[in-house]
Amino acid sequence: MAMEIERKFLVCNDDWREQVLSETHLMQGYLASTAALTVRVRLDGGQGRLTIKGATRGISRSEYEYPIPAEDAQAMLGELAETAIIDKIRHRVRCGEHVWEVDRFAGDNAGLVLAEIELGAENESFERPAWLGAEVSDDPRYYNANLARHPFKDW
Amino acid sequence: MAMEIERKFLVCNDDWREQVLSETHLMQGYLASTAALTVRVRLDGGQGRLTIKGATRGISRSEYEYPIPAEDAQAMLGELAETAIIDKIRHRVRCGEHVWEVDRFAGDNAGLVLAEIELGAENESFERPAWLGAEVSDDPRYYNANLARHPFKDW
Repeated sequence: MAMEIERKFLVCNDDWREQVLSETHLMQGYLASTAALTVRVRLDGGQGRLTIKGATRGISRSEYEYPIPAEDAQAMLGELAETAIIDKIRHRVRCGEHVWEVDRFAGDNAGLVLAEIELGAENESFERPAWLGAEVSDDPRYYNANLARHPFKDW
Repeated sequence: MAMEIERKFLVCNDDWREQVLSETHLMQGYLASTAALTVRVRLDGGQGRLTIKGATRGISRSEYEYPIPAEDAQAMLGELAETAIIDKIRHRVRCGEHVWEVDRFAGDNAGLVLAEIELGAENESFERPAWLGAEVSDDPRYYNANLARHPFKDW
């Protein structure tokens, strides 16, 4: 178990592309997503992952993540996902002490780009790169589980 | 992924105790349980297990099971279970070609004993031991997720 402490921002230009360390193709869907519980299945390149998250409290939530066979992830996304599948390219982008995750969405969420930073404590400080836009940590529309249900193209 | 094909019966006497191969203490709770999806966390002796099951179709359902750290299982049972915790002793009992699982429940389900057999195909035949009572495969009251919500003591 880990506590996930995360802040999420819009991205105001493409300059982050100059600091990309790596990128990976993510497909993910939700078997359950309520205020109290999220069960997410992800295909991350060739690796399956099953992630269980508890209720969000502020910008923190408990998170349990396990590697699973890619074929299980594929089968669960096909058979058990209660939402559409989110399709995005995740870029790891260095900025100062931290590595950001910049997600460029495809499919029904094409056009949306979000930057996330994982922190060790809620009050941890971090450098704000010039390409960073408004913070959306508290805006439920940008939760991936909600993007699966109400994609960006319908906003 | 596996298909789980299971039949469940009441037990009409204690003669199964003479064929016990092994027994283990199980504690389990449900993070989600709907007609379409069950997410179960189990502590099986010292081993944690996370199990995801799809909708029941007849006596079959898809099942995905992963070992997880016991401390994760304990934390999820404490923090994320939406039901009471089921507490039972599982006995593996040989009968002919098959090994039955005989569950003797404790806590709010004390007094209940159920026998389950896992089959390779829905029409697979099996020997019915003399201690076997009525079949309850189709009775939702005996689903463990329902026993967690409406325990035997309240029937």
